[in-house]
Amino acid sequence: MNTLSPRTEIATLGEFGLIDRLTHGITPRHDTTILGIGDDAAAIRHSADRLTLVTTDLLLEGVHFDLTYTPLKHLGYKTAVVNFSDIYAMNGRPTQLLVALGLSKRFAVEDIEAIYDGIRHACDVYGVDLVGGDTSASLTGLTLSATCIGDVPSDRIVRRDGAHDTDLICVSGDLGAAYMGLQLLEREKRVFRGESDFAPDFAGREYLLERQLRPEARRDIVESLASADLLPTAMIDISDGLASELLHIAARSHVGCRIYEDRLPIDYQTAVMAEEFNMNLATAALNGGDDHELLFTLPLSVYDRAERLPGVRIIGHITRPELGCILVGRDGGEVPLQAQGWQGR
Amino acid sequence: MNTLSPRTEIATLGEFGLIDRLTHGITPRHDTTILGIGDDAAAIRHSADRLTLVTTDLLLEGVHFDLTYTPLKHLGYKTAVVNFSDIYAMNGRPTQLLVALGLSKRFAVEDIEAIYDGIRHACDVYGVDLVGGDTSASLTGLTLSATCIGDVPSDRIVRRDGAHDTDLICVSGDLGAAYMGLQLLEREKRVFRGESDFAPDFAGREYLLERQLRPEARRDIVESLASADLLPTAMIDISDGLASELLHIAARSHVGCRIYEDRLPIDYQTAVMAEEFNMNLATAALNGGDDHELLFTLPLSVYDRAERLPGVRIIGHITRPELGCILVGRDGGEVPLQAQGWQGR
Repeated sequence: MNTLSPRTEIATLGEFGLIDRLTHGITPRHDTTILGIGDDAAAIRHSADRLTLVTTDLLLEGVHFDLTYTPLKHLGYKTAVVNFSDIYAMNGRPTQLLVALGLSKRFAVEDIEAIYDGIRHACDVYGVDLVGGDTSASLTGLTLSATCIGDVPSDRIVRRDGAHDTDLICVSGDLGAAYMGLQLLEREKRVFRGESDFAPDFAGREYLLERQLRPEARRDIVESLASADLLPTAMIDISDGLASELLHIAARSHVGCRIYEDRLPIDYQTAVMAEEFNMNLATAALNGGDDHELLFTLPLSVYDRAERLPGVRIIGHITRPELGCILVGRDGGEVPLQAQGWQGR
Repeated sequence: MNTLSPRTEIATLGEFGLIDRLTHGITPRHDTTILGIGDDAAAIRHSADRLTLVTTDLLLEGVHFDLTYTPLKHLGYKTAVVNFSDIYAMNGRPTQLLVALGLSKRFAVEDIEAIYDGIRHACDVYGVDLVGGDTSASLTGLTLSATCIGDVPSDRIVRRDGAHDTDLICVSGDLGAAYMGLQLLEREKRVFRGESDFAPDFAGREYLLERQLRPEARRDIVESLASADLLPTAMIDISDGLASELLHIAARSHVGCRIYEDRLPIDYQTAVMAEEFNMNLATAALNGGDDHELLFTLPLSVYDRAERLPGVRIIGHITRPELGCILVGRDGGEVPLQAQGWQGR
């Protein structure tokens, strides 16, 4: 690099600080720009009653995936699905997808076809049109860049900044399984490194692997919220771990929060693996990442309906900002909720 | 990679063949999907009289840029501008931009700020809102992924597939300068490799460097076409070289074409450098790439107005498909127009 200017390490700012510093002072000039940087997707007004949603994600080899154990078809599927998940997190519906690939010479046409098979399968499952595809050479690893377009009625969009004191904090599905799946794959990789036949025994752990390698987006949750006539006050996709995402909602909504360790939804297989790896189960659930579940808040007044939502757990409630963000342990002890440091995933 | 299936090298299919093979059989399910894979941008209908345009580009270190001689601010500017250029190539107007960065540890906050300075400056110049920004870690090189949203009145969109027999073939600006700029930078890099003070003398060659390092998008051409009440029958952004782009238009429009070597617009500095490097000037202009000029076709009936367009040269005309795509040399000799092989840039 041709710079000798002062050097500030990214880690010293944290993820919030970095984005704030980079985007400071940006004000939209188009009145169609409804929502910019700082949510799961940008929102653009193209008609009186509907908003267009746009989100983009970059998946890099060695950071977001490891081709030693990631089938290319699954990788294509996951690339599409994590983008759909960002649109659902706005309470929207994904409609179009564009994908650009950076490929090194080690990839053959059949490999690219496998990636596209996964992308196309995800588009079939979620009813999305693949409208853009580009491939270019890469000198290093495989790079996937995806952009998803979606839409939402103007009065149904759910942002990160609408949570209020006393709102219920809800989470779909279960947490930490994708992280445990990753630990399992990494362990097997270490064990089998150097051998040509890589076929470890994952019997009984399929759920963990599937959560890591082939996640789904929670369209069903968005649909059941609509069926129950419930509109979250805030919502976010859990990609970096529950703790980090809840802190995002709290910061953007200027509120505090209080969640309970014994309410965290955790699958049996996740708990067994945590035991086997001698890992703290709550930490895996709070900071594991890659869950792609939805975290949302609902007014206390709809408690009865919220409790009946299938596949949704109420894990705590929003508080006044001065009370901070608190995790209440199984023993009743309180600790400040903390996200792991900037990992840039 | 965990595949042992038959292996087809990408080069054997060519760029057309690869995209065709990957996107075979894709049919849109949303009636909002107006235009999918195969043009400069996708088009989506969100209102009765306007279309939303979406384009995405991936810029990879070592393939699309070399940080030895590319200032980070220029890189940010170029990343934005090449996306705007794709929107102009649809006769549209860019309105929103999203950028995702993959960064390795060698980058400090100041470096990312320099990239964002360039992006924001480009947004200021072209009147575009930056609505999405994301950074993630990269184990290898710097990766930039940008997505641009634009719009165009439904009856003014210009695709690649509308060229007709006898249409005029027009090109804006001049060609080959960015390619010569790249050759110049690469030569200086070889000369100065290993020295710490990298400050070669580029006096008199600023234009070539600027074309490579800090290109502009041709908003002015789109505006002067509108002012002259001219609507191209087909248009494309010249990023991979005139020959390749013209072959795209011919293939998509099912026509042939005939262009004249002595009509190719070439700047004086480009010609001088080609002489110095002992390179074929026509080859540089036809296949150099990175020009980001607009190539478009206009009906023969508007010849007088086309000829008066500032900064636009008529370089030939569209023919019936059976006549093929022909380059007429300075000596009157005819050769088939050929794009260079799949380079994946």
